[in-house]
Amino acid sequence: MSTSVLSKATRAIKLGMMPADGIGREVLPSAQRVLQSTPGAPKFEFIQLAAGFEHFQKTGSALPQETVDRLKNECDGAMFGSVSSPSHKVEGYSSPIVKLRKELDLYANIRPVVGVRGTKDDEKFIDSVIVRENTECLYIKSETIESTAEGQVAKAIRQISEKASTRIGKKAFQVALARAEMRAKQGSSATKQGANVTICHKSNVLSTTDGLFRTSVRSVKENDKRENGGEGLFEQITMDEQLVDSMVYRLFREPHVFDVVVAPNLYGDIISDGAAALVGSLGLVSSVNAGDNFFMGEPVHGSAPDIAGQNKANPIASIRSAALLLEYMGYPEPALKIYSAVDEVIREGKYLTPDLGGKSTTSQVEEAILKKLNP
Amino acid sequence: MSTSVLSKATRAIKLGMMPADGIGREVLPSAQRVLQSTPGAPKFEFIQLAAGFEHFQKTGSALPQETVDRLKNECDGAMFGSVSSPSHKVEGYSSPIVKLRKELDLYANIRPVVGVRGTKDDEKFIDSVIVRENTECLYIKSETIESTAEGQVAKAIRQISEKASTRIGKKAFQVALARAEMRAKQGSSATKQGANVTICHKSNVLSTTDGLFRTSVRSVKENDKRENGGEGLFEQITMDEQLVDSMVYRLFREPHVFDVVVAPNLYGDIISDGAAALVGSLGLVSSVNAGDNFFMGEPVHGSAPDIAGQNKANPIASIRSAALLLEYMGYPEPALKIYSAVDEVIREGKYLTPDLGGKSTTSQVEEAILKKLNP
Ligand SMILES: CC(C)[C@H](C(=O)O)[C@@H](O)C(=O)O
Ligand SMILES: CC(C)[C@H](C(=O)O)[C@@H](O)C(=O)O
Repeated sequence: MSTSVLSKATRAIKLGMMPADGIGREVLPSAQRVLQSTPGAPKFEFIQLAAGFEHFQKTGSALPQETVDRLKNECDGAMFGSVSSPSHKVEGYSSPIVKLRKELDLYANIRPVVGVRGTKDDEKFIDSVIVRENTECLYIKSETIESTAEGQVAKAIRQISEKASTRIGKKAFQVALARAEMRAKQGSSATKQGANVTICHKSNVLSTTDGLFRTSVRSVKENDKRENGGEGLFEQITMDEQLVDSMVYRLFREPHVFDVVVAPNLYGDIISDGAAALVGSLGLVSSVNAGDNFFMGEPVHGSAPDIAGQNKANPIASIRSAALLLEYMGYPEPALKIYSAVDEVIREGKYLTPDLGGKSTTSQVEEAILKKLNP
Repeated sequence: MSTSVLSKATRAIKLGMMPADGIGREVLPSAQRVLQSTPGAPKFEFIQLAAGFEHFQKTGSALPQETVDRLKNECDGAMFGSVSSPSHKVEGYSSPIVKLRKELDLYANIRPVVGVRGTKDDEKFIDSVIVRENTECLYIKSETIESTAEGQVAKAIRQISEKASTRIGKKAFQVALARAEMRAKQGSSATKQGANVTICHKSNVLSTTDGLFRTSVRSVKENDKRENGGEGLFEQITMDEQLVDSMVYRLFREPHVFDVVVAPNLYGDIISDGAAALVGSLGLVSSVNAGDNFFMGEPVHGSAPDIAGQNKANPIASIRSAALLLEYMGYPEPALKIYSAVDEVIREGKYLTPDLGGKSTTSQVEEAILKKLNP
């Protein structure tokens, strides 16, 4: 996507690796090995960094300052695994992934949800990208609680700013444009024609906050046009809207109609998990947390404590996230190689983890992908 | 569900009818005719009341005081159609349905999502009820906006109280119990065994607000046990939890695992639309807005301006909502007759509206249901 100076770097690319909790510790090493073995990929140096609920239980901190400092000062990019959540409110604990997104100003969470042609998911084929705002909404975590005569009353603030909404809107248009250009290259094999951005909101109830989100995203196209003296970059990209409740409904009924969907933080969280159900498993869905100059790959799935440590987790979401990271760091060619290798393994259906109805282990799936990359 | 004094009433039951906007005006009359023609149903008097966005455009009020007054002073129950939402923020406009729920203290929105056996949805069969909190969360509509050096910043308050959460939790347990008793009556033909309440929340991020929702609902079972001297009403009902993002995912992957799901207002809105996709169409999903002494039936779908006025809308969601209203007002027998008539029409597949892949009109589907009720 962005062409980074790194593409010209001769030194190794430093990636901060935070497996964190549960299956994150199994799938992130798989992603690391794939990055190391992809033809045409740059040379990497992997820096293991602490984060997660288990780390909190041991040390009292879910995200040590050292991790943040090294990410900021040493690393060119990062990969995050998955965090476990305490089921009760735990004093002093705060989600490290939410904090990381904020600390590194990774304001966009880009989540491609793409089926694989030639599999049983063909019928409800989806090829969309959800662009989730990553820094505000209810995730500012400004909560209070008070005791009243009628019991406790808790309040949370949901913040939507013009700045963050415009910024995420712009990112969505950029993603739509990049996809359209990619499709143009692929020619007739492209699965989608028109480039479109769907704004997901609930302004029929939240007319002020979601109203601001909506108008801010809408203004991106006009502003770009004006700034470019009448011929904007995004001219070819259409725009529509969908209330978040209908969005979830339509996602399942007509997944093929959506190209790029842009949403405030919480709606983005919910609809991307929903979309994941359409491609067969959360174990397939990747994401990249993107700032202007720093990117962090992260599978969309959680830490899955029920299967952790059993070599059963699907490494594909992590491996695809690594490819997405490469793409965003300015290395589209090796990224495409990884995508194709993964698609082939899925299509063949010989090495699949249990979430996809298979019997293979994490290691076997990783190995199958490595073989496709280096036949 | 609740046995109302009305079941012994000899005078006609007065129902306030608010078709409101769009297809609401086509489907609510269908529901009315079905109520009038169901054997064993009480005698009704229907009172047509104004509400909706079109009414706002004509008069400046989306919910006239007269409507609220007559509902409160004259009516025994009500039916609501659907509202159109302005796409832009319109000064002075506020959603009449959100206001009605609050004014009449209809604190629970009960949304059964039930497939029909013997149709193609058998594979992902769902038989669940979503119990949505109906009075608070972001729906208190407390929003502000200010201009800053970096542009506008909008804020909304999300309120979660112990009182409302406990009350909705109790309702969820009551619904689960009623369902279990109904299944016990049906014997082996029942599709579900265990009675369970799933608490839907996002306490890994919103530890204070959703933490309070979670613990309040959890306390319902213990409190009931204590109040009943050790042997609570809800003893047989199990409890589990699901983060809202995973909830949407699992709903699609394993819909059969959910019995009753209880959720704060916005999550409930989103997951019930999602669940609707599983039964083939939003045009099938009914709801009742329930207070302690007043009930209002309401189809889950919107006003569908694209097909309004064309005799194409599916009347089933409204007809089922009318049956649900009957059930909650203390008339389970005629309600069950309506459910069966609707199921038969769906199963036969001869009279279906376009949303279900058929070619029938609203009137033809209504007629087919009326014929099943009075063969
Ligand atoms: C773990 C949790 C805080 C996180 C979120 O809600 O953002 C997760 O669900 C995700 O989507 O990355
Ligand atoms: C019309 C809208 C205000 C409403 C809501 O969000 O509650 C609708 O989506 C519903 O579910 O009844």
